[in-house]
Formats: sequence, structure tokens, C-alpha cells
Amino acid sequence: MPVLDPDRLFPAEARTRDIARTLFAAIEGAPILSPHGHCDPAWFAGNAAFPDPARLFVVPDHYIFRMLVSQGVPLTALGVPRVDGGETERDGRAIWRLFAGHYHLFRGTPTRLWVDHALAEVFGVSAALGPDTADAIFDEVADRLAQPEFRPRALFDRFGIEVLATTDDALSDLAHHEAIRASGWGGRVIPTYRPDAVIDPEYEGFAGNVAALGRLTGCDTASWEGYLEAHRRRRAAFRALGATATDHGHASARTENLAPDAAARLFRTCLQGEAGTGEADAFRGQMLTEMARMSVEDGMTMQIHAGSRRNHSGPVMAMHGRDKGFDIPQRTDYVAALKPLLDAVGMEPELRIVLFTLDESVYSRELAPLAGVYPALRLGPPWWFFDSPEGMMRFRRLTGETAGIYNTAGFNDDTRAFCSIPARHDVARRVDCAWLAGLVADGRIGMDEAREMAAELTTGLVRRAYRL
Amino acid sequence: MPVLDPDRLFPAEARTRDIARTLFAAIEGAPILSPHGHCDPAWFAGNAAFPDPARLFVVPDHYIFRMLVSQGVPLTALGVPRVDGGETERDGRAIWRLFAGHYHLFRGTPTRLWVDHALAEVFGVSAALGPDTADAIFDEVADRLAQPEFRPRALFDRFGIEVLATTDDALSDLAHHEAIRASGWGGRVIPTYRPDAVIDPEYEGFAGNVAALGRLTGCDTASWEGYLEAHRRRRAAFRALGATATDHGHASARTENLAPDAAARLFRTCLQGEAGTGEADAFRGQMLTEMARMSVEDGMTMQIHAGSRRNHSGPVMAMHGRDKGFDIPQRTDYVAALKPLLDAVGMEPELRIVLFTLDESVYSRELAPLAGVYPALRLGPPWWFFDSPEGMMRFRRLTGETAGIYNTAGFNDDTRAFCSIPARHDVARRVDCAWLAGLVADGRIGMDEAREMAAELTTGLVRRAYRL
Amino acid sequence: MPVLDPDRLFPAEARTRDIARTLFAAIEGAPILSPHGHCDPAWFAGNAAFPDPARLFVVPDHYIFRMLVSQGVPLTALGVPRVDGGETERDGRAIWRLFAGHYHLFRGTPTRLWVDHALAEVFGVSAALGPDTADAIFDEVADRLAQPEFRPRALFDRFGIEVLATTDDALSDLAHHEAIRASGWGGRVIPTYRPDAVIDPEYEGFAGNVAALGRLTGCDTASWEGYLEAHRRRRAAFRALGATATDHGHASARTENLAPDAAARLFRTCLQGEAGTGEADAFRGQMLTEMARMSVEDGMTMQIHAGSRRNHSGPVMAMHGRDKGFDIPQRTDYVAALKPLLDAVGMEPELRIVLFTLDESVYSRELAPLAGVYPALRLGPPWWFFDSPEGMMRFRRLTGETAGIYNTAGFNDDTRAFCSIPARHDVARRVDCAWLAGLVADGRIGMDEAREMAAELTTGLVRRAYRL
Repeated sequence: MPVLDPDRLFPAEARTRDIARTLFAAIEGAPILSPHGHCDPAWFAGNAAFPDPARLFVVPDHYIFRMLVSQGVPLTALGVPRVDGGETERDGRAIWRLFAGHYHLFRGTPTRLWVDHALAEVFGVSAALGPDTADAIFDEVADRLAQPEFRPRALFDRFGIEVLATTDDALSDLAHHEAIRASGWGGRVIPTYRPDAVIDPEYEGFAGNVAALGRLTGCDTASWEGYLEAHRRRRAAFRALGATATDHGHASARTENLAPDAAARLFRTCLQGEAGTGEADAFRGQMLTEMARMSVEDGMTMQIHAGSRRNHSGPVMAMHGRDKGFDIPQRTDYVAALKPLLDAVGMEPELRIVLFTLDESVYSRELAPLAGVYPALRLGPPWWFFDSPEGMMRFRRLTGETAGIYNTAGFNDDTRAFCSIPARHDVARRVDCAWLAGLVADGRIGMDEAREMAAELTTGLVRRAYRL
Repeated sequence: MPVLDPDRLFPAEARTRDIARTLFAAIEGAPILSPHGHCDPAWFAGNAAFPDPARLFVVPDHYIFRMLVSQGVPLTALGVPRVDGGETERDGRAIWRLFAGHYHLFRGTPTRLWVDHALAEVFGVSAALGPDTADAIFDEVADRLAQPEFRPRALFDRFGIEVLATTDDALSDLAHHEAIRASGWGGRVIPTYRPDAVIDPEYEGFAGNVAALGRLTGCDTASWEGYLEAHRRRRAAFRALGATATDHGHASARTENLAPDAAARLFRTCLQGEAGTGEADAFRGQMLTEMARMSVEDGMTMQIHAGSRRNHSGPVMAMHGRDKGFDIPQRTDYVAALKPLLDAVGMEPELRIVLFTLDESVYSRELAPLAGVYPALRLGPPWWFFDSPEGMMRFRRLTGETAGIYNTAGFNDDTRAFCSIPARHDVARRVDCAWLAGLVADGRIGMDEAREMAAELTTGLVRRAYRL
Repeated sequence: MPVLDPDRLFPAEARTRDIARTLFAAIEGAPILSPHGHCDPAWFAGNAAFPDPARLFVVPDHYIFRMLVSQGVPLTALGVPRVDGGETERDGRAIWRLFAGHYHLFRGTPTRLWVDHALAEVFGVSAALGPDTADAIFDEVADRLAQPEFRPRALFDRFGIEVLATTDDALSDLAHHEAIRASGWGGRVIPTYRPDAVIDPEYEGFAGNVAALGRLTGCDTASWEGYLEAHRRRRAAFRALGATATDHGHASARTENLAPDAAARLFRTCLQGEAGTGEADAFRGQMLTEMARMSVEDGMTMQIHAGSRRNHSGPVMAMHGRDKGFDIPQRTDYVAALKPLLDAVGMEPELRIVLFTLDESVYSRELAPLAGVYPALRLGPPWWFFDSPEGMMRFRRLTGETAGIYNTAGFNDDTRAFCSIPARHDVARRVDCAWLAGLVADGRIGMDEAREMAAELTTGLVRRAYRL
């Protein structure tokens, strides 16, 4: 058996599988639209070769290192840097062997699908990864990485990426994005406005960040009105480099809609470092509504990624810092939380707010009913732990009957693992076709409709949700 | 392909589909029992022709207009009345064209199944609805509606409805029900006692409603005992016109079981308009237990529809009023909430309390374990957003292993869309047969048992849960 | 059709079913490892014949009597003892007839699978249970129970049980376990340390229990240090008789990690009976962390069964006491609740904490993400109401993509119904093979991998999670 089954993720039943195959054949080659992710724009600005296989696949990928950690492999043995600068593994081959030796852990997980696909389709590896093939595959991939056709821009073109959005701090100088534009290379890489550092009063260095925002924009960010105007200018600067969206990652979906003077007072309290937990949370909530209002003005799509409890392990946070695989979902309410924002702007027909969740229990209870009636809302694809075959199928089954597909926003790969982008879109397209095939097979829709829907899920809905 | 696939909603796998077909053939023609819904008794009292297709299908159906609104169609363009009496679309054909032009939004939703079925089976329309066929289908349906065999009573008979329960305010004079009885027509249309307006202290005009209840019954409803007695008399008046059930729609499932003097004090506080949010909620909870006690006395089945946050959008509520598609489910607890009521009457072997939820996470965690042990409890069918093929299948899979089917109550169409009643029962029967076919196919039950269970799910359980 | 379909619980689709059959054939005969359950060690110490069929199958089995109660059968008619010693049914045949007469209630439930399997495979009964066969089957089973090959030890050997863990109070003298060891019989029956009675300040007689713990161990359990040392000694005594695990059944998963002096003060408050609800809960939480620390020291696997609201019905508790089928799951948080414990010991690579839940909404949101990163955590199998075909399939689908299978702990039968043990393991093995067959059929894993995974799920993971 080849490593990649050509019918992978299609229904087992023959008639339904045939329908899925037919639907997939028509969209398999569609361009990749990647409106949300975490690739580094520096890759495309500089177009330097990627580092060795371990540093490309393992060290930066929390999907991978969290699974190895769960079975007792220390983060230090995987080359994950320490806050104190202490020793961690530096030998890429040693890290790769650890990964290959534990590759069975990923059986049944999406990581397995992504890595197999990247090795086979991007790097032309024909063997299955495992302890016995670790060295040979390391050498094979390392060899490829040294070749010009495996540099970032060449892969971008080979992958058929029509547009790739990065995620950029509000204070970013966007130099890499400017460099890409100036380079004459035709790849469309665009920034996304992610202002957590200047919106969240509990973010490290918040007051300093707000002051820096003032310097960047020439606004008096010590005043509420100046602070809002600074956001407007930064959003405009991002748009000038192609941005069509903003992104907001809060622990809850809480929103507020305070009167201007109350908001101004709250802002002052936060800026002076005097906000308690409740006030900080209220301010984040107020800013979601402010960002939504600015989106009504400037047409930027607003993304809300709510519900992650960041850095769950105290000891790991102390030793290795943020984003080391210890972010854990938590129960999240949207119905009460979003009401202030929705009362303010939810009926705006041109506004686009894309909602994401890590709490699947809200798909049918909260998100589908909300997106199925408020014109401003669209449902983002299954996020993070749920960006997986079963997760996507549950999402469709739990939201499709109430919100339909036309209130959803297509797929996001949401990754910093550049070589997995084709794999992730491949999985999403296959699962969508498998779902649609089921609807055709049991007579809920016709084949002509399924074809249209497959195209919409792959490109149409993405273009419209993100104005691409 | 015909618009309606004769095998729709059956499993794709051939052997399982054959089992489903066999099971369905035996119950497809069973009479329709509709123990809970929102049809207007005036239709059957007056037997006037239904209005034009748009006013029959679109304007009153929140499933339909909420989906169009979600894609930016204003409620006013759909003819939904305004609170201020302002202009809204009056041309039925224009509304119908809007609906037909957006019909693709319903792909994969139950609304699509219901509308297709009603057009094809009730009105004999052979074309698929869409922008190109909008006018022709409008004319075809309008033409039929003018014919005597499409009047309410004729359709009632044609649909094979054995009994249809409406939902009636406690203060209703029930004149239409009396008129139906007096008319000599044989259709069994019965009322349901729905006392929210005289039980919920936060209902508009609560105190006046309670006073009106006193006038209607000749009881002193200013006293707690008189108020309870008034309920008893109204329930008796409903029963005299055939009612077998009551219905209660609260935001939570909270119940209370206060000592009589504490309950009397709380009632007084509510009546004087001095109840805070907590006291109003406690009073609603107390009244659920009182209603349950009266059900032990008079044998009426009690329905609890909990967990809807009504009128989520402030602006829509202000412009169009209640019930305009902006009711959103919220997380709902049953385990702690129902304990006071269940401690009071949960072990009564003849009491029937039918529980409904909009929070699917409670099916397996709370509702099935409760209904699987308390003799008074039965599980109502999937409600509202979950009255759908996927929703029904999840309900069976999530409750069937703990509560079995004999602690469930069969199907409710719960609709005000009269022409969709056959479609809704058709969907429910097909999904039940699909689920049973799966149990037969993998050896969990025998074919003889599945036949018995299909009949129970279609009629037997309904008759017993509602004493019909 | 025979009562037991040889392909039961396998996928209906032919190709996938063939894969499931092949996988199952290789593990069907594997030894039974039962690392958690509620069998009585006295059975194997004394090896007396089991009582009549009703007392073996019905009276002690809350799965069975709760379903009959839900349909109005009184507990007294089923022979369930009363707290006041009052009359309950004593005629085993009468109880059995009631059970057989209501056996249709179990259609589609796991109880049906277990009872059918036990009657057919353990007792050789060929007829289907029902009102007509009740007496004949009662006689047939009763006849078998009188034979020596149906005594506990003979059945233990026949069932192929390699190890069976019982659950034993911390204060137990373990005399039956000593007797089993002294008997020369080769069956491995081992105790499990379950210290609820000396850990939960709200347990009846807590202070007395703690004093008894002191007498048993020769420690001064009036002091915090002495109390902890007493636990260490009791754990050692359990280990000396083969124990490899502890078990903790709390209403929530709350943990605490107080400074020693704060913990000592809290202990004193609890011992003096002065702890409020919050303090009692905090103490239980502190003791989970203490138990985890002792597990790091002594290598015992720690099990946490959280989320059951015990004895929901006041009247049933008053009449019949604990454990009468009225324990109901409740919403349970793990992410915040476990943080103190995980910050203390979650990164210990040799520690094994097995988590169980009655709240399925946490599988994908909380448990899989936690177990997929913390080396100390493993996921226990679906518990109680979810120990069922659908429940197991949901568990795999909801956890497998994030935690994989290698962070799970294999199957527990968790039963006091000894004759159902082979049935329960049979169901679990079939469902695991059905799940794996689906992954093979749609190309997610290879057949060779599925074989390895099936063996791991059946025995490998159990041995490692419980150090058996």
C-alpha cells in the first residue's frame, strides 16, 4: 500500500465513495486561499532555504511536540528553547530520530495525515516514517531543502497558493510585507491586524505597547479618542499592504458596549495599571465592539478566536515560556457574551465577523443559531484540536442544519508549518466532499447542488467572508 | 431525479437501507398524532381558504425568514410586521420571489425537506423551487389554495391526522375549540394549557393577567389558594374541550418546592410587582412544581420546554417584537434544577412529565440518566433547531442506551406551518427507521423487535405519553 | 437468528466489516485484564455457589433495576432492601418474572448485550429472554448455579481472567484478599485503595473513620503528618496484597495544592466537624494532590472518577439508601480543577493518573487536550452510562485525534455483575475493532498498524497504565 491512499477520508460505502470521488476531482486542483495562519513573512521576504528537517517539522510545531511530551519526552530533548537560555538539544538528526521513534503515537491523528502528505507530496519521500527509516528520510528531506525549488517562494508557487495571510502584531513595522511587495515576486502574502498586545490590559507591557502605538501613528494614545484613532490608522496601514482582516484571541467571547465616557474611564484605569481582573476583561470586551465598529467603517473582516486557556502548566511556562503546547480549551459562552456587540452591529449587512471556538458543545446550541440569523456573523472552520477529519465532520453535522453552509467561511489552515498547507487543505476538501456525498447519497441534495457547494466551500465562501 | 428521493434519509449501505425500507413501509401510512404544536384553531373553526403562498409558507415561519435575514435580507422585505405599524412588503409574489431566490441557502437543512415535501406532496408541484420557477410555483400553489380540497379541514383529513393539539393561553376563551366541537366536523383538534402569561412574573401585564384569570374562573386570584384553584378550574375547562396536556416554556428548568406559606408570600411579592429577577425565577420554579402536583391530581401530561433565551436582538425586538427568529438556545442544567420537583412527585407512577431541551450536551449527561430512572419522566423529541435528521439521530444515539425508547414520547411536529405537518412526520419516521435499521444490521436487536419499536415510536409511545 | 449475532457491533458495510472481523479474530481470545471493578473478594475467598438468578442478575445491578423503576416498577418489588428493614420481595422467581416481563425495555441498551451474552455464553441458554421463557430460563440458570463449574473460581478460570482488581475501603481488613492468597488457588485477585471514607469530610462518620485509620496503622491521625503517614502505610499494606492502584470518587475534579501548614489547618477544621461545604471540598481537592504525590513515591496508579451527583432522589435515599440507581452525572470541569495537581506533579514521567468522566462534552474540549500533553495523565475508558457501543465509539472519535490511543488506558469493566465480565470485554473489543476498521477503510492507518493498536487497546495499554 502506498503511504497515501488515493481514497483517504472518503466514505467506505461504494456508492457514496464514488460520489465523493467525483466531487473531489472537481475541486482537488482549486487554488489555495489561506486567509488565516501563522507563517512568517520573513520566509517570503528573504526566500532563504528552510533549516534542517527537525527545525522545519518538529521544533516549531506544537501538535508534534505536545504528543511526544505526553509520553514523557522532555521539551529540552526536542530542542525547544528555554527561557533561561539553558541547554537544549541542538542536533537536528537526534531530534528527528526521537520524532520518528515515536511516530506511532500519531496513528489516527491529523498530524499523521499532514506529515505523511508533506513527506510524500512535497518532498517525494516514498518510505513510511518510523525508527528504521528516520535517518534516510532525514537525509532525503535535508537534501531537498538545499535545492532552489524548495525555497519558500518556489514552494508557495508550487502549492498553488493564491493568497496567504500572516498574523501580525499591531506594533509590527510590516517590513517583511513591504519587502515582499518591493521584490517584484508575484506571490500574494498579506498581513492580518492582531492587536492583542495593545488591547489586552493583562498582556505583558500593555502601557508601553499603547505608548508605542502612539509613536507609530502620531496619535495621543493616552486619551481614549486618540487611542481609537491610532487603531484606525494602523488598520489603514495594514490595509495598504493588502490586509483584509483583523484577528482577536481572547480567553472568552465577552463583549461590552459602554457609553463613550465610561469606556474612556475604563481605558484610563487599564492604562494606569489599576484594572482588576474584571475590569481588564471588560476592557477586552469593549474593544471587540470597537473593532467591530471600525470594521463597519473600513470593511475589514473581524475574526474572534475565543476560549483558549493559555499556558496551563505553570512549570512549563516558567521553563519554556508561551505557546509550548500547553494551551487548553475551556468552556465558552457566546450567547450572552456576544449580545452587546450584536446589539450594536449584528444587523449590519456588510459586516463580517468570523467566529471560532474550542468548545464543540456550542456548535449546535449557540454558534449555528446565532450565525443562522445575524447577518454580520459567519462561522469559522473547526479550529486547532478540531482541524481534523472527525472534527470537521462533526462541525458540518452540528451546524449545517441550522446555519447551512452559506453562513460558514470555508477553510483556514491556521498553521506555521508551511509544508503542511497543501495537506491541510487536502484533508478539508476531502472531508467536505465526504460530507456532501452523504447528503447526496441519502437524497437530501442533488449532485448538481453538491458540486456547487463543494466549490463554495473550497473558494467561494472564503473569498466572500474575507473579501479576497 | 424527482424532487423527493423515495429512499431519502435512509442509510446508504444496501443491506441496512433494505431494512429501513421494510420498517418504513409498515409505518409510513400510520395516522398522524400531533400532541404539541402551534396551529391556529381558527383555521378549523372557520375553514376559510389559506392566504397566498408567501403568507402561508414564508411570513409566519421563523425557520425560513431567519435564514434569509442571516444573509442580509431585511425582515421588512419579507412582510414581517413592524411594532410601529410601519411599512413592510405587502406583495406576496415579491416575498415569494425573494424566498425562491435564496432557496439554495436551505441546502442540507430540514426546511428544505419540509418545503420540498409540502410543494410536491400537498400541492402536486413537480418542479424544483428556485429563481426560475418562482412565479410558476407561486401561481400553481395559489391556484390550489383557492380550491375547496385545500381548505384546512380537507387537508386535515387528507393528511390522516388523528389528533392535533394546539397551544392556548390560559386566558383564552377557547371559542374556536368550542366552535370546532359544535360544527359537527369530525376532526379532533384539542387545546393545550399554556399558562406562561399568568405564571411568569416578568411576562407583560402579569398582575392584570392574574386578575383576568380570577374573573374567568370566579376565584380570588389575589390569594395564593385562590390563584391555585383558578388554575385547577382552567385546567378543567381545557380538559372539557379535550385537552390532555399542559405546556411550560421557561428560560431555565429551575424548580422549587417551597412550604405553602413561603410560596404564598412569594406570590404576593410577584403580584405587587416587587419581585427581583431571582424571586421571579423562583416563582416560575415553584409553579412548575405546583403544575406537576395538579397533573398528579387531574392526569394532564406536563411538558417543559426549557432553555430558550428569547428575543436575543434588542433592535429586532424593538422593531418587530417577539418570535422573530432571534430566540437562541443557552446552556441549561436539569440535574440540580429539577431536583425539588422530582423529590416532590418524581416517583409518581402515573404522572407524565415530558422534557425538552435546546442544549444537546444534556442528552446523555442529564436527561437520559434522569428519564432512565424516574417513573414520572419522559423525553420529548428533539426540539426546534434539532428537529432535523442529524438532530434526531444524535438524540437516539445519545439517549437510547441509557433511557431506551420506552422513556421517550414519540414525535412532535411543534409547528405553525400546517402544510409541513406530513413532511415533518415523514422525516421523523424515516430517521427512526434508519436508526433502527442500524441496530438490526449490527445485531443489537432482531427484525421483529425493530418492527414493534417502529410502531411504538410512531404511535404507541405518543398515545401513552399524552394519554391520547 | 441466534440470540447472539457473530458479527454484532461490526460496521454494516461489507469491506469495513471484514476488516473488523479480521482484527477481532486476533484479540477475541486475549486474556481479560480487569484493573477496576466492584466484584466482592469474598466470592473468591469462600468460593460458595452464587445465589438464585434474580439475586445474581437483578437485585444488585443498578443498570437493570433503574430501567424497571423508570417504568413504574417499585424497588420493593425487585427485592431491593429497605433502610427500615421493611418488607420487600423475597421470591427470586417473582423478581425474575418481573425482569423478563420488562426485558423489552432494554432494546438498544448495553444491558441487553450483557445479559444475552451471559445467558448464552456463560449459562448455555439458547432461548431469548422474555415473559414466555422466564420460568424455563430461571430454572436452567438456577440449575447451573448449583454445579461446581459455576462457582466463582471456576468461572474466573473459564472467563480467562488474568487479573481482577476489586475496590476496597481504606479501612478494610483485606481478610478476603489474604484468604485468597493463602488458599493456594492461582487466580490473581487484587485490592484497590479507595479512601473516600477517610478523605471526604462529608462522608458519614469521617472523624471516626480517621481515628480508625490511626488504630489500624499505629499513626497519630489527629495530626496532619500522622494522617498522611497512615495513608502511606495503608497503601503499602494494599500493595503487599498485590494492589497497583488507588481510586477516588469525588463529585468534582477539584484539586488544591496548599502549603503544608494551611493544609494542616484545613485538616484540623475538617476533623473537628467545623468544615463548611467549601472547606470540605477544598480538603478533598488537597487530598487528590497528596494522593498523587504518594503515587509518585510508591508507583501506584491513581484513578479519578469525578462528576457523579450521588443519591439524587431524596425519597429513594430515605427509603433504600445509597447506590440505588439514582446517581446522576453533572457538568464537570477539569481544566481549572486539575491545574493545582498538574502544576505539582503533572510533568512526572512515571506517574499514572487515569481520568474518568460522566460529562462527554469534556472529551474533546478538556480531557483529550490535557492527556495529549501532560505525561502523568491517561484517559480511562467510557464510564458507567457511557460503557456502551455508542458511548465507546464517541469516546474514540472525540479523543483519538488529539490524544491518540497511547494516552488512553484500555478497558475497565467496572462491574459488580461477575457473569457479565466476558460480555463487557467482548463489547469493548468489538467496538474498538469497529473503530479501527473504519480508520483502515478510509486510509488513515494501515492494517498492520490496526493489528498492533487492537492488541494495545486490549492488553498492552492496560498493563502499562496499571503496571500489571
